[in-house]
Amino acid sequence: MSFQDNYTRYYNDFETALKQYCDELHTQPTVLKESMTYSLLLGGKRIRPVLMLAVNEMLGGKRGDIMPYAIALEMIHTYTLIHDDLPGMDNDDYRRGNLSNHKKFGEGNAILAGDALLNTAFEIVLKECLKGYNQVEAARYLAHCAGINGTIAGQSADLYFSEKEDYSQEDLEFIYTNKTGKLISAAILAASILSEGKYMLELEQFSSVLGDLFQLTDDILDSESTFEELGKSIGKDAKQNKLTAVKFYGLSECKVRADLLAAQCNQILEGIPKDTAFLHELVDFVKNRRK
Amino acid sequence: MSFQDNYTRYYNDFETALKQYCDELHTQPTVLKESMTYSLLLGGKRIRPVLMLAVNEMLGGKRGDIMPYAIALEMIHTYTLIHDDLPGMDNDDYRRGNLSNHKKFGEGNAILAGDALLNTAFEIVLKECLKGYNQVEAARYLAHCAGINGTIAGQSADLYFSEKEDYSQEDLEFIYTNKTGKLISAAILAASILSEGKYMLELEQFSSVLGDLFQLTDDILDSESTFEELGKSIGKDAKQNKLTAVKFYGLSECKVRADLLAAQCNQILEGIPKDTAFLHELVDFVKNRRK
Repeated sequence: MSFQDNYTRYYNDFETALKQYCDELHTQPTVLKESMTYSLLLGGKRIRPVLMLAVNEMLGGKRGDIMPYAIALEMIHTYTLIHDDLPGMDNDDYRRGNLSNHKKFGEGNAILAGDALLNTAFEIVLKECLKGYNQVEAARYLAHCAGINGTIAGQSADLYFSEKEDYSQEDLEFIYTNKTGKLISAAILAASILSEGKYMLELEQFSSVLGDLFQLTDDILDSESTFEELGKSIGKDAKQNKLTAVKFYGLSECKVRADLLAAQCNQILEGIPKDTAFLHELVDFVKNRRK
Repeated sequence: MSFQDNYTRYYNDFETALKQYCDELHTQPTVLKESMTYSLLLGGKRIRPVLMLAVNEMLGGKRGDIMPYAIALEMIHTYTLIHDDLPGMDNDDYRRGNLSNHKKFGEGNAILAGDALLNTAFEIVLKECLKGYNQVEAARYLAHCAGINGTIAGQSADLYFSEKEDYSQEDLEFIYTNKTGKLISAAILAASILSEGKYMLELEQFSSVLGDLFQLTDDILDSESTFEELGKSIGKDAKQNKLTAVKFYGLSECKVRADLLAAQCNQILEGIPKDTAFLHELVDFVKNRRK
């Protein structure tokens, strides 16, 4: 099966499960469910759940055991996007080619939609925690990566440095590792934890470098893609004085670095005696994507 | 020991544990920890953690087993206040006599401080989940009460009806039960679940009525207290066209209802063959409080 076929298979499995979860979601008032599911079902590459399902399959895990974590992870990712887009943060009117949550439902509802997705993510994994120790550890890993030594720390640093003139390479790396990298790690390592921690060491290294690659290509895309391709406002980072790799190293140096990071990812994968073909091709996909 | 002495004992135990937790909290950048702990340590009555510790003690539970849940619960309560105060929600400049979080740290940091407190609350209880089944169930109960069939549903409905002219008694009750009642229930019932579900039925009824009483007295206070007593803007509910019991029933009818709810609380407590003296007096305390 080709890389694209496999990606589509993971993607479709996830979309089916997510849509079913959303259909069965019960809450009042109506706007709460609408605002939660609006952003959640806007699509996107679903790279985190796809990664999670792929690593789980590679390690011999069951689809049913990983899916609740994949849904929770995408909910957490989505809530960070909704809150990031708010006027008090990045103030972005568009996301994935559509109105951002607060432009569609108003600021109050967008704040609550984000809170609701984060809380619901934990309700989902806490139900899994009744099954045993690995499930609790996987949930803890997810919470850690999403938290104040993960995504939220990265967002906070991103906000902090957007108001500063002076910053270092270390500051940039702190933001990359935390804001983007940690949820990529959560996808890969929660899958490993649920499979008794198989290849944890290698997968930890892999997820760390892949996370850097992902953020680097995000920056490259922000500087040279179009609104039509990306579905969100372009060149915003530069306008907002955002700390980005392109600003720091220049565009051509960034592309050299992306090649190096991709090579590093592939080298780490060589150390895992499993069928890593999909992950190898995923590295190229991340490096060469246009959105 | 008098009611006041017991309240102070629970209060001080909680404050000590919370301060120690905050002292040991590690994150970057500095503003993230500052904005989280600013609101968390502004004080307040701590009625939810006090209730939790009191019920835990009444049922013979260990202090060390309940404290992480009390800290998590207060973090969840605090995050809802921070997000409620944001310009996109209630737009309140003061909280507990001090600047609200976004007036102190700016909107972006306040959004993240709220997110950080919610996420950290789950990190805390997930660590407890490693101990066993009851710990997972208590965490699930807390998550449920905080979520889209609890506090967040109440906040969403509150926002929804603040823009409507027409609403019913059922709408008001929905907001009360969810926005305020569910976290009161979480305090009492998580303590019961950790003690093998002791007196769950009676405590469920008690917490439901106590929650109604708490929100009713909140409304009474908003309509007749002063800024100095309450530490936050007064009469805001009426100004914002908020659905309140005072608006619905009138002030004197509300006071009659408060007496009835208090009597109902006391009657339910009679059915629990434990030392309920503290809870009886706490009902009076909630009814007669001036802030």
